[in-house]
Amino acid sequence: MKKYAFSDRERPIRKIATLTTLSNGFLSVRGDPETAPSEYGTLVAGVYSYTPIFYRELVNLPRITPVYVELDGVPMLPVQGSNEFLLDAEGGTLSYKAILGSSLGELEYESLRLTHKKFKGIFALRYRLASRNAEGRLCIKHPIELDTLNVSSPPEVKVKLYKVEEVSAEGSSPSLSVRTADNAYRVLYALIVRGSPAEPKSYYTGKEVGSCYCVDVKPGSVVEGEKVVIVALSKEELEKFRGIATSESFGGLVSSHVGFWRGLWGRVGFRLYGDSALEDALVFNAFHLLQLYNEGGGEFMLPARGLHGYGYRGHVFWDSDTYSLPFYLLLEPEAARKILEYRCRCLGAAREYASSTGFRGARYPWEGVDDCREATPVEVPLDLEGSRKAFIETGRLEQHITADVAYAVDMYYEYTGDEEFMERCGLRIIFETARFWASRVELGGDGYYHIRGVIGPDEYHVGVDDSFYTNVMARYNLVLGAKYYALSQSKPGWLRVAVEEGVSREEAEGWLEVAGRVRVPCEPGGLCEEFEGYFKLKDLEVSNCFGDSCAKGLDVGSTRLVKQADVVAGLFLLRRFFDRRVLEGNYEYYLRRTTHASSLSLPMYAAMAAYLGRVEEALALLRKAASTDLEDTYGNLEDGFHVAAAAGSWMALLLGFLGLEPRGGKLVAEPRLPEGLGVELNVWFRGKLHRVEARGSEYRITEL
Amino acid sequence: MKKYAFSDRERPIRKIATLTTLSNGFLSVRGDPETAPSEYGTLVAGVYSYTPIFYRELVNLPRITPVYVELDGVPMLPVQGSNEFLLDAEGGTLSYKAILGSSLGELEYESLRLTHKKFKGIFALRYRLASRNAEGRLCIKHPIELDTLNVSSPPEVKVKLYKVEEVSAEGSSPSLSVRTADNAYRVLYALIVRGSPAEPKSYYTGKEVGSCYCVDVKPGSVVEGEKVVIVALSKEELEKFRGIATSESFGGLVSSHVGFWRGLWGRVGFRLYGDSALEDALVFNAFHLLQLYNEGGGEFMLPARGLHGYGYRGHVFWDSDTYSLPFYLLLEPEAARKILEYRCRCLGAAREYASSTGFRGARYPWEGVDDCREATPVEVPLDLEGSRKAFIETGRLEQHITADVAYAVDMYYEYTGDEEFMERCGLRIIFETARFWASRVELGGDGYYHIRGVIGPDEYHVGVDDSFYTNVMARYNLVLGAKYYALSQSKPGWLRVAVEEGVSREEAEGWLEVAGRVRVPCEPGGLCEEFEGYFKLKDLEVSNCFGDSCAKGLDVGSTRLVKQADVVAGLFLLRRFFDRRVLEGNYEYYLRRTTHASSLSLPMYAAMAAYLGRVEEALALLRKAASTDLEDTYGNLEDGFHVAAAAGSWMALLLGFLGLEPRGGKLVAEPRLPEGLGVELNVWFRGKLHRVEARGSEYRITEL
Repeated sequence: MKKYAFSDRERPIRKIATLTTLSNGFLSVRGDPETAPSEYGTLVAGVYSYTPIFYRELVNLPRITPVYVELDGVPMLPVQGSNEFLLDAEGGTLSYKAILGSSLGELEYESLRLTHKKFKGIFALRYRLASRNAEGRLCIKHPIELDTLNVSSPPEVKVKLYKVEEVSAEGSSPSLSVRTADNAYRVLYALIVRGSPAEPKSYYTGKEVGSCYCVDVKPGSVVEGEKVVIVALSKEELEKFRGIATSESFGGLVSSHVGFWRGLWGRVGFRLYGDSALEDALVFNAFHLLQLYNEGGGEFMLPARGLHGYGYRGHVFWDSDTYSLPFYLLLEPEAARKILEYRCRCLGAAREYASSTGFRGARYPWEGVDDCREATPVEVPLDLEGSRKAFIETGRLEQHITADVAYAVDMYYEYTGDEEFMERCGLRIIFETARFWASRVELGGDGYYHIRGVIGPDEYHVGVDDSFYTNVMARYNLVLGAKYYALSQSKPGWLRVAVEEGVSREEAEGWLEVAGRVRVPCEPGGLCEEFEGYFKLKDLEVSNCFGDSCAKGLDVGSTRLVKQADVVAGLFLLRRFFDRRVLEGNYEYYLRRTTHASSLSLPMYAAMAAYLGRVEEALALLRKAASTDLEDTYGNLEDGFHVAAAAGSWMALLLGFLGLEPRGGKLVAEPRLPEGLGVELNVWFRGKLHRVEARGSEYRITEL
Repeated sequence: MKKYAFSDRERPIRKIATLTTLSNGFLSVRGDPETAPSEYGTLVAGVYSYTPIFYRELVNLPRITPVYVELDGVPMLPVQGSNEFLLDAEGGTLSYKAILGSSLGELEYESLRLTHKKFKGIFALRYRLASRNAEGRLCIKHPIELDTLNVSSPPEVKVKLYKVEEVSAEGSSPSLSVRTADNAYRVLYALIVRGSPAEPKSYYTGKEVGSCYCVDVKPGSVVEGEKVVIVALSKEELEKFRGIATSESFGGLVSSHVGFWRGLWGRVGFRLYGDSALEDALVFNAFHLLQLYNEGGGEFMLPARGLHGYGYRGHVFWDSDTYSLPFYLLLEPEAARKILEYRCRCLGAAREYASSTGFRGARYPWEGVDDCREATPVEVPLDLEGSRKAFIETGRLEQHITADVAYAVDMYYEYTGDEEFMERCGLRIIFETARFWASRVELGGDGYYHIRGVIGPDEYHVGVDDSFYTNVMARYNLVLGAKYYALSQSKPGWLRVAVEEGVSREEAEGWLEVAGRVRVPCEPGGLCEEFEGYFKLKDLEVSNCFGDSCAKGLDVGSTRLVKQADVVAGLFLLRRFFDRRVLEGNYEYYLRRTTHASSLSLPMYAAMAAYLGRVEEALALLRKAASTDLEDTYGNLEDGFHVAAAAGSWMALLLGFLGLEPRGGKLVAEPRLPEGLGVELNVWFRGKLHRVEARGSEYRITEL
């Protein structure tokens, strides 16, 4: 399996730290070297607090990793260019080494760290120091740092989103608890330092709680030690994990952690033959996606940038349901269910959102947080003076999210047949979202239903009418409402839900009637207009540029340039319902006009290209999509992992290249692999693991 | 002379740190122990930056004081209750001692610090450590900390208002420069550690730049060292002060500093006989007021809370001109001039402010900052959620500041006869502010000129018409305009200014005409109504309460409760123009209704009571006013020194109790001292120092 090496000779540490983030879906730690100060603390999934501008955001909790080395009081810091990182995706560990230096001399430092995939509350790190030419009193500090802040906008503004509640620095294992600023969450910590040549002493300064020991060194001396930090949301969990961490050696913790990962990878069983760089990229992406899932959690809020950084403030967008769901559905279906469990819990708030904005049913927020309310910022100050601001309309206008959630529920049911979920929640989401769209559409003088004033996936165009993507997804949502209502007639449990939700035959028929007349402006068998009036805009094509740079200096909203797959996204998701010539014609037309300024774009085009059998083109798109983070394609890697690009590249592989699809209760494939490429992996379908082996258009699916 | 002892057994360190702030008017350092972390960094007078909500604020610059002691790597922190502070007001030094402890043992720590009153760029500190029972490797770190932040509102929001530009941690004297976030100011630092038993080593971690040395200690061991930090606004200044600090011993620095202070106190020559607690309080206040003045500066921006804390963000209010000016005018007239130099520099901006709000002439901002623009916040968020906000109207409505500035200019001229200042600037301020009021008044159907929609000093009542204070001060401003125009007719230099400013005889006569008809609603020889309609409000009197608590649970704007001296302030400032019965009657009426929720209230009442000869009552008010900070009367001492209360208590003494007044070009007194109280001090008048000795109603003024 794969190991990924990074060095600060080839890229900045703040970017490497995203690539080398270790997470177990509960606790997440960026790969910043433990030997130097960093603004990045710890993230715990689901721990948000109120914050200015962004409503609520993931809290930058106390930093647990540091191992600070001082020689005769002088900090020994990593020498620039000597920082080497090795991410072991098979075992889920990060190895780090560097030269630590000061005017007093140099030491060689190396460490291994993990966030335990089985014992979620455990972060463990072992280090080894060897003096090159350093001589004197060497003190090693192992703090938990309490001065981490969330960076707001502009970045000079920081917010302290937790307060220290209790600290105990007595005895050999200091502990503390913090509360989020809004008192909604309490996070507990315990620190264990061991394996050291001298007895560690605890301390607390107000800025940090830690443990320290000192030894005399001379050239050639070696010092080894271990830092284990327990992080938990309750006293019981804290003690449980403290017990495990205390009774197991570091080697034991590594072995149970690596064993857990081996089990995961064994179930995935993935190989891609014929393109090892692509295989590397896909494994890298799968590793981070699997890391993000907390096997022990009740729901899976999947932030746009993972738990790898603070981009988008830990908010959950449509890519959780649309881009990430397929990966988990096929490789870890419980994770897919838990993505939807988050939407389930938020159904009440979605009902309130619909009603408070003048609609019926349920409306999901464009940016979701723990309390399920709309968290999209409206006005973001860009400087301290307050003279420059960004005004953001997506929260108000990017409404397709509601249809995306319903689509995901249906897809989940198709692949899993999970009756319990549907009866408890899935059906209600589908009915309530259909109801939203039925109230959202407006009947025009032309006899069509219109959806006016929205933003589609292509955010270059704001406040448009009859967005193709929005309209076809809304239409499909209405169809799903009617379909599931019809299905409910033959299932007593479902019927009860329909009754409880007050869905009548008339209402369901109404949904179908509206669906039949939602305006979807495609020429017969031909081009679809991205939104009303798009074809009247200045026609520009993308040439020799990528992303934001294509739109530079342009009033982009007045052109036909497209930020990301929009018509093509709708067509891919609903590919079964469109004629192949429509897919093909629109793919060609829009690809030429798409800047891919969003990381959601390439995977969708890759998927569509593969689906259309344009395999070489698809492969080029997939390579680029899959390496979004490894290549730092968007230049903002430091803000976190691009979850949608990673999961989207898997979606392209699974649904596009392999053509996996449930048909008549069975999983079928229709591989469209380029010459020389072969894929093997295990996928789940309806509770059973299946081995898929494909090469060219040949394939075999075997139930395991 | 006086020494002031404080201990953390009797009050929190954050409050002691205000009382023990050391400043030289350029560089200011709160009294936080150097041995423990603190959020408070350093203030440099005049160094502001843009900031959210508050427009611009004083920058919380890098913290220069820390001396951190670690025993075998474990921080040795001050033991709670062992922190003792001794502020020596005579020498301008702070002595500090504490027990530093950890689980490894205890050390006795003591230090002496100063911000050099002569060599403005020098902060110096000498410490002595004695081990009680501590044994091991003792490392002493001397960092300049680069992680200080400004606290915004709500306090969880912090702002980093400077960025590190250059750091040099090579050699024995590290240096660095930072720039304010808006690039408006550059501040340079150099660190010198000396007198230590081992050679210090420099280091830089990103969070701090420092110097450290280690020694082995055992019980009884003594370690001594010195930390000197140079702070400057230019490379030249940095090198100049570095040169002085390097060539002088610590003892030499103490001696030149103390010598400077001795000179200051010698010129003040103050004694108060018969009430040593009051004498202590007045000396304490004078010490801090004299500290705040930078003898080498070109102008004197005097923030409401001094350079002692971050309350009101370092903004400059009317108390600078109205409450503080008399103290400086009599004790340090150059400081008074420089207070007005700030207003001079801001005259252009004040013209723009008047014109942009629809008026003529010059309008001074309610809250002033370095760039002279209105810095009063409008909307202050009170929680992270954004659900609670304070809306602040004073910036828009509290307009009397403009008349207060003119009053201060006139008073300055009366006491100093400074022709150069008047010709260069003072006259212009008086003309332009008179012009403002002439355009601000509205002629009513009743034949009177009205000033509608303002806030007077009593901020309980917002948007009132014909505020007594505002109207009498505006009227006086108009009269001053006419008076100085008349004077200009016989002085060629002044005449030129009048011509340059475009003031004609007609305009000046117009001012007088308006002044004669400004509505000032007093019953003949009797009560004055604080504003139009005040007497129709619910009549409540203050009983058994003080400050904010009096207004608790009340819709205070609908009552006759008054926040601070308002009518009485206007009457005291213009006491020469009102009948004694009017002063007396209004004093009695309003005192019963005043909550003193502003620290500006008691000094004005004390001054008026003394002026009226109600000496025992006046003495009680003065004692309370003078001890505002020593007693933490307002419970917010941590936010800084209450400059107006300190200077106001001196104003009450000088103008009220001593009745000092220029009359016919001479300084006269009319002492009204209680039985048994005697006062001696030296005051400046028209460039000459005069010895004033007073006891009871007897007095002597001798030119020195």
